[in-house]
Amino acid sequence: MGDLSEPASNVGAGGAVIAPSQEQVVTPWDVKGGSDGKIDYAKLSREFGCSSLKTDDRDLVARIEQLTGKPAHCFLRRGFFYAHRDLEAILDAKERGEPFYLYTGRGPSSEALHLGHLVPFIFTKWLQEVFDVPLVIQITDDEKTLFRALELEEAYRLGKENIKDIIACGFNPDKTFIFSDFDYVKGEFYRNVIRIQRSVTMNSIRSLMGMTQEDNIGKIAFPAVQAAPCFPTSFPHIFGTRKDVRCLIPCAIDQDPYFRMTRDVAPKLGYFKPALVESRFFPALQGESGKMSASDPTSAIFVTDTDKQIKTKINKYAFSGGCATIDEHREKGANLEVDVSIQYLRFFLDDDAELKDIEERYKRGDLLTGEVKARLIEVLQAVVGKHREERAKITDAVVQQFTAERPMTSYIDAFSHKQVQEQVVAKGKVKNKK
Amino acid sequence: MGDLSEPASNVGAGGAVIAPSQEQVVTPWDVKGGSDGKIDYAKLSREFGCSSLKTDDRDLVARIEQLTGKPAHCFLRRGFFYAHRDLEAILDAKERGEPFYLYTGRGPSSEALHLGHLVPFIFTKWLQEVFDVPLVIQITDDEKTLFRALELEEAYRLGKENIKDIIACGFNPDKTFIFSDFDYVKGEFYRNVIRIQRSVTMNSIRSLMGMTQEDNIGKIAFPAVQAAPCFPTSFPHIFGTRKDVRCLIPCAIDQDPYFRMTRDVAPKLGYFKPALVESRFFPALQGESGKMSASDPTSAIFVTDTDKQIKTKINKYAFSGGCATIDEHREKGANLEVDVSIQYLRFFLDDDAELKDIEERYKRGDLLTGEVKARLIEVLQAVVGKHREERAKITDAVVQQFTAERPMTSYIDAFSHKQVQEQVVAKGKVKNKK
Repeated sequence: MGDLSEPASNVGAGGAVIAPSQEQVVTPWDVKGGSDGKIDYAKLSREFGCSSLKTDDRDLVARIEQLTGKPAHCFLRRGFFYAHRDLEAILDAKERGEPFYLYTGRGPSSEALHLGHLVPFIFTKWLQEVFDVPLVIQITDDEKTLFRALELEEAYRLGKENIKDIIACGFNPDKTFIFSDFDYVKGEFYRNVIRIQRSVTMNSIRSLMGMTQEDNIGKIAFPAVQAAPCFPTSFPHIFGTRKDVRCLIPCAIDQDPYFRMTRDVAPKLGYFKPALVESRFFPALQGESGKMSASDPTSAIFVTDTDKQIKTKINKYAFSGGCATIDEHREKGANLEVDVSIQYLRFFLDDDAELKDIEERYKRGDLLTGEVKARLIEVLQAVVGKHREERAKITDAVVQQFTAERPMTSYIDAFSHKQVQEQVVAKGKVKNKK
Repeated sequence: MGDLSEPASNVGAGGAVIAPSQEQVVTPWDVKGGSDGKIDYAKLSREFGCSSLKTDDRDLVARIEQLTGKPAHCFLRRGFFYAHRDLEAILDAKERGEPFYLYTGRGPSSEALHLGHLVPFIFTKWLQEVFDVPLVIQITDDEKTLFRALELEEAYRLGKENIKDIIACGFNPDKTFIFSDFDYVKGEFYRNVIRIQRSVTMNSIRSLMGMTQEDNIGKIAFPAVQAAPCFPTSFPHIFGTRKDVRCLIPCAIDQDPYFRMTRDVAPKLGYFKPALVESRFFPALQGESGKMSASDPTSAIFVTDTDKQIKTKINKYAFSGGCATIDEHREKGANLEVDVSIQYLRFFLDDDAELKDIEERYKRGDLLTGEVKARLIEVLQAVVGKHREERAKITDAVVQQFTAERPMTSYIDAFSHKQVQEQVVAKGKVKNKK
């Protein structure tokens, strides 16, 4: 899976999807804002055909709270995850007591993760916790070999390092299976890859993702490898031969084309369409139009940064929405929508009351940028410090625990297979069974 | 691997390679003769860029006899295998006592094999015997799922059936590894697939094999799966991590595009280019311009045919080069080059003296077609009878013996790894090692 929140530009699949230069472009490998450098997220989800989590007559965030009995994660409350496909079908299944599972992933293109990489995993961890469901995490070391000038051995090594950072997010070891494609593509998984590849033409890959004839054949075929984890039979050690387990994918919205393709194919193969809950992109320190890049250490806070580095980076690089002089700032206040410190606090300061207080005082000019940054530095030092602490505990034995192909049926077994099967078939939700 | 001797038409990859209707067309999925319906083999190998086994200043068949101390197989003596790539490098390696291995395969598109399917395996069995080398046989059940309207499960099942017929050809169980792609694509094999896919663009696949944008993405990527067995690291249980073991592929010449691609890629990945020894196509009962088809029982002799069926088919369908009336035949004699019975005898009657005698008498008109057919029927009944007998002995345990991933190092170990490595590197034959 591509980086879930920091799509790299110019590494991608050619230019067939290219729009006029002032139009925004979002593919799994290329994200360009519109003429103001910003992404119009409403337009994006409209064009992709996703639905909003909150509309006038429907609030899925409230429904999640009601179903789980837990307050929504701040990424949901604050609209960072804002779009979805078929999330209602997942919530309906939950309500009926039917099984589903989560699927997310990472393309291992860098040694250390930055906060943007962490965000989808933090959210997925929360989803796993409140729904108490199995989770599969795909490390697409094969994708990074195909799409980047990265040797296979290096992509594999980076993946193994990244797995430790992912585990440090706190996933449930009894319900989480993390796999490198180079280790796991085989058997039932490979069979699903072939079934998917057989159902997708080069033409549709071109129009969905902008592949061209100049691309290598691995790039062209890879989307099927990212699609295969959407189908439960790709994990026989978890789901056996069951085809009727739904899949929910938390991801950044640039990954949507992969799963639009998968959703087209799923019914033909007798599977449920995967559901999605989709996020905006995590901003670079330089602001929304900037690009976070693992190769530019000034663009992001890394989980390997020291307290001192965090302090320096925020003070030096975090784009300020405050005014140029103190006097002007006291008079006019800050522009919160471009201020990166406020954006970052919205992610990592869970306390709604404190956040609201900071926003209001900053907006009025009562708080200076330096003061907001000081609070952000504290918050991020705590987040990164906690991660550092957890990461240090991840031994090879722990990695082995998460990556072993082991039975994970306690959840699924809680349901009478036959009963669920009948319910589902009666509702006509699984068609074209072979 | 596609059927090695009976390329199916119109199942293929689209039409980008299409030539004017009177031109011959040969791709791994489509074989069409020229305006006379015949394949011009000299032209084909010239266009592909292969070399002849026998030229004025070089006779590789004689060199094989000299190196192995065995008389050449009649498929070689009689020019059925007629072209090659780098066979001299294999023979040089043999002379120096360096290891190499054989690779062939089958695309499982039908339940029972016909004689045309058997021919490359008979030859490969002979090569294994006289060179005493390891052999890998790929069953491309994934290819048949991607290229034909064959369900995955059916392609897999047919592959398993075909394996029994292949084993019945008499391969050495200690030195032969037979694998279904659905079972074996994984690990080091998959890594090589990705390395190869990364090195080949859609453009080159299109010009080599005629793939188009309408083709499914699995077809486009599949050539890398057929290429991977050319590299010894795809079989760690046989070759460990050695990259310096050469590969020789006996196959029908329509498979050449796959291996031209592989030979382009090999040096970039630090492997030897695979060598090839390439055959003409095995003729249908209706003659060279006819098409053998597993779905048309009158076009071929199957290994499941009874003695009676063989007799009926040969008498009824084998195209005759004899004249219309006995008187005319006695006077003018037979045209051996279009006579299918003579073609088949050239494959299956090993006795050169008897064959020569039959040919001469038939050509003069001393022998009638019926008499030649009578002898052919005897010969084929013996060949098929022997196969039937051997096939009956192939239990599941025998299949397990051939398909188990097991060490097979006795041959390779006989050489000092280091010494061979040094020799080879000194000769500059392994380049671009990573």
